[in-house]
Amino acid sequence: MSAQYTIGLDYGTNSVRALIVKTADGQEVATAVWPYEHGNAGVILGRDPNLARQHPGDYIKGAEVTIRNALADAKKHVRGFKPEQIVGIGVDTTGSTPLPVDASGQPLAFQKRFHKNPAAMAWLWKDHTGVVEAAEITALAQKLRPHYLAKCGGTYSSEWFFSKILHCLRTAPEVFNAAYTWVECADYIPATLTGTEHPEKLAVGICAAGHKAMYNDAWGGYPDAKFLSRLDPKLGKLRARLRPQARAIDGSVGGLTACWAQRTGLRAGIPVAVGAFDAHLGGVGSGIAPGTLVKIIGTSTCDMMVVPGDQPLADIPGLCGIVKGSILPGYYGLEAGQSAVGDIFNWFVNYLQPGGKKAGTHEQLTREAARLKPGESGLLALDWNNGNRTILVDQCLTGLLLGQTLYTTPAEIYRALIEATAFGALTIINRFEEYGVRVQQVVNCGGIAEKNPLVMQIYADVTGRPMKISRSAQTCALGAAIAGAVVAGTYKNYAAAQRAMTALKPRVFKPSPEAHNTYRQLYGLYKTLHDAFGTRKWRDNLHPVMKQLIEIRSRVRQ
Amino acid sequence: MSAQYTIGLDYGTNSVRALIVKTADGQEVATAVWPYEHGNAGVILGRDPNLARQHPGDYIKGAEVTIRNALADAKKHVRGFKPEQIVGIGVDTTGSTPLPVDASGQPLAFQKRFHKNPAAMAWLWKDHTGVVEAAEITALAQKLRPHYLAKCGGTYSSEWFFSKILHCLRTAPEVFNAAYTWVECADYIPATLTGTEHPEKLAVGICAAGHKAMYNDAWGGYPDAKFLSRLDPKLGKLRARLRPQARAIDGSVGGLTACWAQRTGLRAGIPVAVGAFDAHLGGVGSGIAPGTLVKIIGTSTCDMMVVPGDQPLADIPGLCGIVKGSILPGYYGLEAGQSAVGDIFNWFVNYLQPGGKKAGTHEQLTREAARLKPGESGLLALDWNNGNRTILVDQCLTGLLLGQTLYTTPAEIYRALIEATAFGALTIINRFEEYGVRVQQVVNCGGIAEKNPLVMQIYADVTGRPMKISRSAQTCALGAAIAGAVVAGTYKNYAAAQRAMTALKPRVFKPSPEAHNTYRQLYGLYKTLHDAFGTRKWRDNLHPVMKQLIEIRSRVRQ
Repeated sequence: MSAQYTIGLDYGTNSVRALIVKTADGQEVATAVWPYEHGNAGVILGRDPNLARQHPGDYIKGAEVTIRNALADAKKHVRGFKPEQIVGIGVDTTGSTPLPVDASGQPLAFQKRFHKNPAAMAWLWKDHTGVVEAAEITALAQKLRPHYLAKCGGTYSSEWFFSKILHCLRTAPEVFNAAYTWVECADYIPATLTGTEHPEKLAVGICAAGHKAMYNDAWGGYPDAKFLSRLDPKLGKLRARLRPQARAIDGSVGGLTACWAQRTGLRAGIPVAVGAFDAHLGGVGSGIAPGTLVKIIGTSTCDMMVVPGDQPLADIPGLCGIVKGSILPGYYGLEAGQSAVGDIFNWFVNYLQPGGKKAGTHEQLTREAARLKPGESGLLALDWNNGNRTILVDQCLTGLLLGQTLYTTPAEIYRALIEATAFGALTIINRFEEYGVRVQQVVNCGGIAEKNPLVMQIYADVTGRPMKISRSAQTCALGAAIAGAVVAGTYKNYAAAQRAMTALKPRVFKPSPEAHNTYRQLYGLYKTLHDAFGTRKWRDNLHPVMKQLIEIRSRVRQ
Repeated sequence: MSAQYTIGLDYGTNSVRALIVKTADGQEVATAVWPYEHGNAGVILGRDPNLARQHPGDYIKGAEVTIRNALADAKKHVRGFKPEQIVGIGVDTTGSTPLPVDASGQPLAFQKRFHKNPAAMAWLWKDHTGVVEAAEITALAQKLRPHYLAKCGGTYSSEWFFSKILHCLRTAPEVFNAAYTWVECADYIPATLTGTEHPEKLAVGICAAGHKAMYNDAWGGYPDAKFLSRLDPKLGKLRARLRPQARAIDGSVGGLTACWAQRTGLRAGIPVAVGAFDAHLGGVGSGIAPGTLVKIIGTSTCDMMVVPGDQPLADIPGLCGIVKGSILPGYYGLEAGQSAVGDIFNWFVNYLQPGGKKAGTHEQLTREAARLKPGESGLLALDWNNGNRTILVDQCLTGLLLGQTLYTTPAEIYRALIEATAFGALTIINRFEEYGVRVQQVVNCGGIAEKNPLVMQIYADVTGRPMKISRSAQTCALGAAIAGAVVAGTYKNYAAAQRAMTALKPRVFKPSPEAHNTYRQLYGLYKTLHDAFGTRKWRDNLHPVMKQLIEIRSRVRQ
């Protein structure tokens, strides 16, 4: 019998990737990446720095181009490879990235009148335009439905489904009114590949619905219409046009359509798995299991854990969600995260360009930063340039750099920014453990974990824990391919598929006791700033400072 | 009668300037600048970012080269000009910039064994190595001699005379022991030009002694030997080798020596005025008078005011000094200041080089920053990269930048840094007025005031006051030339000399009410950060944060 393969289709912030994986051992035999065409590296920006959208046309073209190219790549590298050997497809995407669709399930952005309207596009995960609406949803839920919040960390985020939809309703009513319903990108792609976009047929994954849209079987799915109507009667009416039942990650949405088979060269009818978020499938591709924290480090991070579904589990404040079946069937999927990690380093390199384009590359700055000792620069930063996801769940926070002298160098700042993200990572680990979820090992994956040993060493030194790296450089796509293998029936469950298809790299970053000692002190100072600016714990309070600056900024920009 | 001229010799941080001024109307007819040869742009740095020294050899060579070149320049531009028309010399320098000298008054740095020893050089004003010693002097004076502190703002600074000498005693005893005494640069230059370097002949100016060395006639000059002995017996012994009597700024030190006449081409015997600090003579050159705040804006700022000597005057906390006769004879000279202004902009441009050397020039950043509205960036900075002189008198403070997003640009940061220095300037104005010293007009001078209209407009908008600019681009050198004219007898007093030789530029920067309104809000937030990190006012305190980072930095660098 010839080898079997599955495709993992991985929709990122700037590009989409197709990865062809051998189901027997997880070998990644071919891949193709396509950068989105629209906007600034795939992200459509606005005058409001909170705005970040994507054009769904990029999703469609990206699927076609990357699958075709990955197949061509496989033919080149695997002797005798035939597209017919692909037996299943899994899809992961960013999220919450909802898009408005018409009554047939087609994106409004495909209509000529909305083609250039950012409100009709996909509202990318990092879009924070719905800050006011998020606060309103949180406040109302605190009052009327506290149990909704308990499962998503205590605060409903501006990054999430209903905040975005409500903001659209308020600020772009022509789009809201033209939309029949809203679909997460994670559900839209599998639906498109299988011809099930129609709102009556659409399969909705528990991952997106549970983590971002307060969906829970315990209270009958999405938030009830009465609650949503209190936010706006039109939002209440939308409730009826959301699917009643969300599906677990090991289900199949349907078979690849003949049309898509033709566009890509794949066999028609091969199963496509229920879509999930990149981080969740990244956890799968990194071999997530109880006690293992998987950190997917990219532009932002997602920090994923699972807890057996039959164990008692506290509601952990500040998490992005506790959703049964969102990562592994039968386990609680726990998602935490940092709103920006790679994005902060990219901001420094691309926006500030210290020393110019040539001198200030990531490589050069990393090299220089590696020569510094912990504490040597006297700098301390907060990693909040894009707000704080866990544990504060507050997008109205901003970056902070402290300790500059007249001699502070770019490399010192670069290192301070890395350290800030490490302190943020430690804050998340501490939060898990404070609520009884033991972190027995940390497995990292994603571009930065792969390529930047300095970042990994600093994470080890700051947390005092060994940092392990997932074998795959593409764990999200690999996780999606694993999902493809499960729905294709190659493996009877995720545990078996993970055992065969995932592994760790041999290199482990061990903490240096001396560095850890310095970082323990620095973390105390980080936590002081964190609590001063990020919480209301203190009597004389700095909590309003960043918020008032944002208010002034918004007023002045009007 | 042919026209008379005087020379102002102005020793800055990076270079020395000679300015030839017509005494009749203050016309600046010729000038020459010479950048110091040693170190990094004239400043010798060390691994310790607090260290900043100058080689006194640069002072000697600088006098010769600039006077010669200025005379040549005058011959070129003034028909019939003859060096004999120069009737007097005034000298201004940075300070406190003390240097150790031997028993004949020669700098130890001129001895071969000390030639490369930073401790034997001039300890530049911005050297902060004596932080610990400054705290010790402050603590002891608080206990034993509170009146010493009352005249210098309540805190003895690490930038000042005895902090530096005590630090030398502790860390470089071979230099301290080899030194017969210590001389301020402001006194050393006039002494050299007039051959009065010998410690028995040396003329000490009230400006340096009064503002930086706790000299006051009320308690018999310098701090008493008993007090100094409590810091260290050797420091107590040094007391006897400091001059008993400091001299006012309108006195002459002596006549130019034949040797110096030959070296420069000037007439031997022309009077040289008692030396003073750049800022004080900058005040003179800007037409300082009661009610006029003169801001000398350069790498740092000095904010100078005078109050009639017969008026009651409170001890104003946070000032660098209240010294009778230090600016104008018969008036209290009040000095305040910001530890870094131009230096912060230079740090951003030269150390961070945003966008590279070409894109990130002051000109380009200023152009882009000028397009931004107040508050638009959402950024807020503290101007403490070099500590805070007034009103906190604390060198153990560092910079802070807050409000960064993933899209923050270099121009936005540049503007935030300008605004931070404006907020610092406003804090000083408020402090003067809180203690009954009314600020009726603000006159700016120095390179930045001259060349950067954006800075002046932001200062007007932030303070809500018109910003006027001194006519002269070289007010410190002009002030020194005025001192030269006074000691030459051309004018009977400073008032008459200032009337003839100083003026304002016609352009006045008026505050925009709209911008001022936004800045009032932003200043509230600045003051919140200022008090949180800079004072112990708050119950839950951020005051230790910057200090602990500096402690960690020092420990790690050892």
